[in-house]
Amino acid sequence: MDEINNLDEFKSFRERMNEKILASGHLGIKRFFTLDTNAFQEGALDVRTKEMLGLVSSMVLRCDDCITYHIIQSVIAGVSDEEIWEVFNIGLLIGGSIVIPHLRRAVATLDECRDLETNNPDKLKEQGDISPYE
Amino acid sequence: MDEINNLDEFKSFRERMNEKILASGHLGIKRFFTLDTNAFQEGALDVRTKEMLGLVSSMVLRCDDCITYHIIQSVIAGVSDEEIWEVFNIGLLIGGSIVIPHLRRAVATLDECRDLETNNPDKLKEQGDISPYE
Amino acid sequence: MDEINNLDEFKSFRERMNEKILASGHLGIKRFFTLDTNAFQEGALDVRTKEMLGLVSSMVLRCDDCITYHIIQSVIAGVSDEEIWEVFNIGLLIGGSIVIPHLRRAVATLDECRDLETNNPDKLKEQGDISPYE
Amino acid sequence: MDEINNLDEFKSFRERMNEKILASGHLGIKRFFTLDTNAFQEGALDVRTKEMLGLVSSMVLRCDDCITYHIIQSVIAGVSDEEIWEVFNIGLLIGGSIVIPHLRRAVATLDECRDLETNNPDKLKEQGDISPYE
Amino acid sequence: MDEINNLDEFKSFRERMNEKILASGHLGIKRFFTLDTNAFQEGALDVRTKEMLGLVSSMVLRCDDCITYHIIQSVIAGVSDEEIWEVFNIGLLIGGSIVIPHLRRAVATLDECRDLETNNPDKLKEQGDISPYE
Amino acid sequence: MDEINNLDEFKSFRERMNEKILASGHLGIKRFFTLDTNAFQEGALDVRTKEMLGLVSSMVLRCDDCITYHIIQSVIAGVSDEEIWEVFNIGLLIGGSIVIPHLRRAVATLDECRDLETNNPDKLKEQGDISPYE
Repeated sequence: MDEINNLDEFKSFRERMNEKILASGHLGIKRFFTLDTNAFQEGALDVRTKEMLGLVSSMVLRCDDCITYHIIQSVIAGVSDEEIWEVFNIGLLIGGSIVIPHLRRAVATLDECRDLETNNPDKLKEQGDISPYE
Repeated sequence: MDEINNLDEFKSFRERMNEKILASGHLGIKRFFTLDTNAFQEGALDVRTKEMLGLVSSMVLRCDDCITYHIIQSVIAGVSDEEIWEVFNIGLLIGGSIVIPHLRRAVATLDECRDLETNNPDKLKEQGDISPYE
Repeated sequence: MDEINNLDEFKSFRERMNEKILASGHLGIKRFFTLDTNAFQEGALDVRTKEMLGLVSSMVLRCDDCITYHIIQSVIAGVSDEEIWEVFNIGLLIGGSIVIPHLRRAVATLDECRDLETNNPDKLKEQGDISPYE
Repeated sequence: MDEINNLDEFKSFRERMNEKILASGHLGIKRFFTLDTNAFQEGALDVRTKEMLGLVSSMVLRCDDCITYHIIQSVIAGVSDEEIWEVFNIGLLIGGSIVIPHLRRAVATLDECRDLETNNPDKLKEQGDISPYE
Repeated sequence: MDEINNLDEFKSFRERMNEKILASGHLGIKRFFTLDTNAFQEGALDVRTKEMLGLVSSMVLRCDDCITYHIIQSVIAGVSDEEIWEVFNIGLLIGGSIVIPHLRRAVATLDECRDLETNNPDKLKEQGDISPYE
Repeated sequence: MDEINNLDEFKSFRERMNEKILASGHLGIKRFFTLDTNAFQEGALDVRTKEMLGLVSSMVLRCDDCITYHIIQSVIAGVSDEEIWEVFNIGLLIGGSIVIPHLRRAVATLDECRDLETNNPDKLKEQGDISPYE
């Protein structure tokens, strides 16, 4: 259950802090968060493609939390394992071996998400629903 | 004609240096270049998607030459302006305003490619054919 | 007069591309540009402090265009040379010697701005007025 | 009490390791640490401004420990919440959404510091006093 | 024994994930891992020099896992403390004070490795043997 | 003769700006420059190794001016082509394909330096002598 707890903690801290950020009342930051949400909604590109764009960017910039977020969303959007590994490959090649430690953690997160998808799909959906205020 | 010359110079310097790099005989570097070429060929993801992944990564990492390369390839692969602007938007949002100077140059390159596409499609294809050795 | 021409070219390319970017009609990008403009307007912090924050961020992220922009704005906002050199020092220390080439170019830009300030203050103001659409 | 423990651990590890670093006897590193300390002391810019410069640089470079350090120092130097949120906003805008996970942790640290400021001001001062050797 | 456990956990997670990565069957990623292994084997430069190159790169790119890996390998390859501190100094100077938190953790790792070298050399060798599949 | 002119311009701009930087009288920056010079002088590691450390760091951080500087110094210090290509390979692998445009320019610079070494060794030495004030 460790893995589920990890995603749970991730979600809970995220939510708690996002609420504080919005409660701060800073209009610029609030609008930035809205732009962020909008950018990943269906448009000229579908959600699947956008999530892969977010995932590869997070890999080359080496941000674990961002990678976790976009893997959850990619799995929910129906991106296949074969497709995600192609994204991993491009991220690794462009970003270099410095990306490898993040790739390892990404693989652990992907496993966890696939496990939820099979055994607890409602829980997976809940994990993906982490920006309720936007 | 400035713009066409820019892409021409880009291609010519690239080719000349790529030849020197391969002529160096370093096996590791040669293989890296092969991996790079392979990563962007049709697989579980199509070439269009892969080029957009390359483009967004180049934007958030702020590499003008890489952005130029992936815009040329995206246009050749048939990515529409609407789709490219979605990639620009995601790159800008994830990478921040520090990406803006690169976005400006990317817009100039996109213009140049669309111009070639209309007025000199053979020239555009030639621009995209810049890794003859791989 | 080289230096003035440099700033002129910078301004002219910026303006031309910013217009194209807005003409693209992408709402997300347009709003991002507005957030960017707003962030540097007087608020809980004055414009002087905000421009110094922008300058040091541009230095540690090593973006020449961004450094140029924030030096112009800092000079217009009345930041003294002594203050700018303190910002340079903090940027150099946090960002490391990899910042030095950008510091050299920053010093050339600062010279150019101080020269304009003395000999052609209207021109300097014009240089700073580079986001007319926002 | 978790939060206090976090800052306590941060301080204790920092101190232990800084001592080892100085004990190594490497003159270059020792002098670098001195330059670092000096850069943030009152000069042409006051300590408040310098700490905000350090904070925004740490945000755009995405270094949690550095963010924690400069938040502690900013609070001690009397930077208000309104001012810190302006710094957060500029860091987010320049650095992009990749900064968001660090912003969340920064908000948690700020809360912890404000809590100490109210309930245990001596403890807060102690937290800030983490470079005794310089 | 904490420190040994840290390195143990590092090794165990690495191995488990590396196996999953290879089991994914993605040829590009597999070949990238092979290139990575080959790059650090004796060639025109000896292993000692190559490990120091890997260490300084990991420092300026601020990747703790990569730093840990190259410190282990450097110690096994016979790099002295004096030499490692020179690498630390160059990494700090080029990368700036943003490297300091990583330097602190690097010093803790180096201590742990030297301790193993003295008290449990077989264990140290085992730690270094973390890419059995390549 | 283009290539020689490039290095000449690089040296001339560097010298002119370094002089201005020192003339600014900022003690912190002056001392930083001294630390930088000292770091690359013979110590527990020889100059050759240190220059390779500087070169690989400059590659993974993608700074053309820094790469140029360390190639000049490496050639003067007697690093062979085989050794430099090993450094290039490690920089490429760790830093990823985003390094390739810088690798191309590095190869052009290396050619230029080898040419000077053969045809105008005094000129090469002069190129390397770019920090007279430290």
